[in-house]
Amino acid sequence: MGLQATPARRGPKPNPHTRDNLLRAGTRMLHDAGYSATGIKEIVDAVQVPKGSFYNYFDSKEDFGRAVVDFYFDSALEGLRALLLDKNVPPLERLRGYFDERNRGFAQGDYARGCLLGNMSLEVADHSAAIRERIAVHFRTWSGLFEDCIAEAQEAGAIRNPQPASTLAQFLLNSWEGALLRMRAEKSDAPLKQFTEVVFGSLLV
Amino acid sequence: MGLQATPARRGPKPNPHTRDNLLRAGTRMLHDAGYSATGIKEIVDAVQVPKGSFYNYFDSKEDFGRAVVDFYFDSALEGLRALLLDKNVPPLERLRGYFDERNRGFAQGDYARGCLLGNMSLEVADHSAAIRERIAVHFRTWSGLFEDCIAEAQEAGAIRNPQPASTLAQFLLNSWEGALLRMRAEKSDAPLKQFTEVVFGSLLV
Repeated sequence: MGLQATPARRGPKPNPHTRDNLLRAGTRMLHDAGYSATGIKEIVDAVQVPKGSFYNYFDSKEDFGRAVVDFYFDSALEGLRALLLDKNVPPLERLRGYFDERNRGFAQGDYARGCLLGNMSLEVADHSAAIRERIAVHFRTWSGLFEDCIAEAQEAGAIRNPQPASTLAQFLLNSWEGALLRMRAEKSDAPLKQFTEVVFGSLLV
Repeated sequence: MGLQATPARRGPKPNPHTRDNLLRAGTRMLHDAGYSATGIKEIVDAVQVPKGSFYNYFDSKEDFGRAVVDFYFDSALEGLRALLLDKNVPPLERLRGYFDERNRGFAQGDYARGCLLGNMSLEVADHSAAIRERIAVHFRTWSGLFEDCIAEAQEAGAIRNPQPASTLAQFLLNSWEGALLRMRAEKSDAPLKQFTEVVFGSLLV
């Protein structure tokens, strides 16, 4: 083993564009095909860099997976905040507008791919504490934004449901992930429509 | 290519136990590790049969995945029916009893593995119409059982929520899948508890 190259920290000098390119391509590939089905070789080939380059930025596939989870959520976060924290729109309308907008997006995407955080939760969370913990952090940030809207709507009397905003927000996020899961199984937007119907017809009322 | 053996229909004479053993081991392995992460070689090794044996029963890994989905759901269906169609228990209590029982099961399983139908929906449904269609069929059978309970409870006045039982049942199933997803990300039963709290506190009331 003595002369065998270790995979860490070799290859050409780090270049910040390469890291971003790897993350961008890897996020797309993991989202399309899944974590186990995507090899490091395919990712470096997509970006046209040598395999050693990958190890300049990431210690392992797991380390890359963790970075992809961050990259994916961070890319969405600004838009999420802009929609959900827009004080010019009443809080319940902001929530509704957010889900309507996402539903349109998934219809355009032929009801495929879904949410990468959800996909990684089911495929990888049992096997990697490092990846799981990042997913959990992002889910909490996301449900926190829902919670702010729900609490504000409860205060304004637009939601009379007295259950704690935090509980409702967690349930809302998890149910949304479940609706996306069922959308994939049905290749249909019926689960997304049922989500909207029940959430805004029975739950957040 | 002319002399190369095709993988279909070779090896020893079919034996019904082997098929069941392959399905039982494969179901456990796909549930533990995922579809892409599990190779046919590992499955036949677990059952101690030659690889050719596999192709006596299954045309391909995809064909096996489809059979695993059926095997998994069919194994659960009798218990599901026994709990959810037990006319000696009021319908809302049957539903509650079902989720309480599942929550205990997942606590014993350290909040891992979740629901194989859900896992396969996110990992495989985009890539295999054959597997996806079987998942969809089983989800519909399952939500049909919820729908019967909800309709019966609405008729008895135990649920006053006037939304259609079918819509509520689909939402319930999808939200349950979402709660299981989040359970995996958090390694905690908080999502299952929030599910029960909101479903029986706000939704099915």
